[in-house]
Amino acid sequence: MDELSDERRARLTAAFEAQGMMSTLGIRLEEMGPGSVRFSMPFDPAFSQQHGFLHAGAITTALDSACGFAAFSLMPEDAEVLTVELKVSLLAPARGSNFLITGRVIKPGRTLTFTQGEAFAIDGDRETRIATITATMMTVRERPDIRPGAPINQNT
Amino acid sequence: MDELSDERRARLTAAFEAQGMMSTLGIRLEEMGPGSVRFSMPFDPAFSQQHGFLHAGAITTALDSACGFAAFSLMPEDAEVLTVELKVSLLAPARGSNFLITGRVIKPGRTLTFTQGEAFAIDGDRETRIATITATMMTVRERPDIRPGAPINQNT
Amino acid sequence: MDELSDERRARLTAAFEAQGMMSTLGIRLEEMGPGSVRFSMPFDPAFSQQHGFLHAGAITTALDSACGFAAFSLMPEDAEVLTVELKVSLLAPARGSNFLITGRVIKPGRTLTFTQGEAFAIDGDRETRIATITATMMTVRERPDIRPGAPINQNT
Amino acid sequence: MDELSDERRARLTAAFEAQGMMSTLGIRLEEMGPGSVRFSMPFDPAFSQQHGFLHAGAITTALDSACGFAAFSLMPEDAEVLTVELKVSLLAPARGSNFLITGRVIKPGRTLTFTQGEAFAIDGDRETRIATITATMMTVRERPDIRPGAPINQNT
Repeated sequence: MDELSDERRARLTAAFEAQGMMSTLGIRLEEMGPGSVRFSMPFDPAFSQQHGFLHAGAITTALDSACGFAAFSLMPEDAEVLTVELKVSLLAPARGSNFLITGRVIKPGRTLTFTQGEAFAIDGDRETRIATITATMMTVRERPDIRPGAPINQNT
Repeated sequence: MDELSDERRARLTAAFEAQGMMSTLGIRLEEMGPGSVRFSMPFDPAFSQQHGFLHAGAITTALDSACGFAAFSLMPEDAEVLTVELKVSLLAPARGSNFLITGRVIKPGRTLTFTQGEAFAIDGDRETRIATITATMMTVRERPDIRPGAPINQNT
Repeated sequence: MDELSDERRARLTAAFEAQGMMSTLGIRLEEMGPGSVRFSMPFDPAFSQQHGFLHAGAITTALDSACGFAAFSLMPEDAEVLTVELKVSLLAPARGSNFLITGRVIKPGRTLTFTQGEAFAIDGDRETRIATITATMMTVRERPDIRPGAPINQNT
Repeated sequence: MDELSDERRARLTAAFEAQGMMSTLGIRLEEMGPGSVRFSMPFDPAFSQQHGFLHAGAITTALDSACGFAAFSLMPEDAEVLTVELKVSLLAPARGSNFLITGRVIKPGRTLTFTQGEAFAIDGDRETRIATITATMMTVRERPDIRPGAPINQNT
């Protein structure tokens, strides 16, 4: 994997830290490279489903963010990233004490970037692949409306 | 819409209250009927993305749960529900002070139930459809392994 | 539903007739309006799967085209339409003598248009919903490369 | 890759040949192993879209079948396979003289099998990845209703 420039690394880190959702879920940015990121996330009963495992929504949130940051790492300096759509397949219950989440770019583009990712549960010695994602990310420029306080432009 | 029996209503409510994720996100179960539920969720900066709007993951979590409860409302008394897969399309940024989330069964089945749902942002007088979901839910019976503490059976 | 202008109707019809796939599958354009189309398709054993029903791929092809034409009906005169991604849920086997396929725009946009559609099997008196689609369509302008003979630009 | 037994190989080949859709599209079964298949498909203007490239529906049909056969290769002798749902991302136009399509099992299960696949266009010396699929396949046993002539049981 090539190295990210220091500027780009700083920009990705700042965007990550600006997401309240990431710190709320306890997600850590473990690795980032051009078109690729890896997160970790602890188990927390505050984000459980009815059987006591991590809620699929927490896993999906981490997968969506991993794909978004992977795409963002290849975008121009003045661009923002938005998720267009995502599909998640839940291969096994999210049972574990810790989770690893990866996102990577499959095909970058000027407007759209196709991404994929995977989530793994760590349960003692055992690592189980529990989910996969495919997501389409959009490069957005000159969209002041996606910042708070601005009127939302309905034309994606 | 037909009415749910009192027993079934109590069972759905108990399952909802057993999800730490629902209370953490402040999601309220506003309505439930056979094959259909409606949630509300407030905006909370703890669940924001980098532009200050609600994170797509929070919306997706609510949509997944709405579809899961809609499916669960039609399942036998001794069954559990698991999400097999979900796809979410993000039509517009999740900008608003409050959100409405619906889930409904499109086709029930003995093993698989197909569901759809929608999310709306309330911003002052304005209600905007911001996301749609399609999800496949599975009826699970005699699967003690999906309860905490049991070994996970890899065979879905 | 509003009416399509004659020019737009002629343009849609020409694009439909330029798809070899549509005539090969025997698909007919039954209705079109702004943001909405309806197709019919006969059963043909040439497009069957191993149980003798219509192949899911034939249904998916018709659903993809219906969504594409629904999106195209709202696009500027000089634009082309491309499918970004699609998800199809197969609710029941495609058993019938004839099939109805609908596509409609859920949210139009300058760059991306979100669409949904449904397929129904007609089997004697019975009409069964057999499939649903959600698809993202892209407006493409000034892309001579998507015409035959031109080099393909990898940047979507 | 392990080897398939002769019986299983014969059963897969018979199921492939029973699909009218495969011979109509000119799809060839190039390789099969436990949980994995590879197809080839020629370009044919009968299956084109409006720009003269292969229709996304033809690519999707091949991808769906590749995933279905990959799943089927791991199923018990008396089982049938049905596609529950599929999502296809279209990375680039399907421009080429020939296409390669792969399908593989990501996680097998008693009831559901998760699969992925990819499609590549061959255009002279150039091989381009043009599409990816994720699909959920279902093992079906004792379902005489999915054979022609039988009443369809709506309970999936």
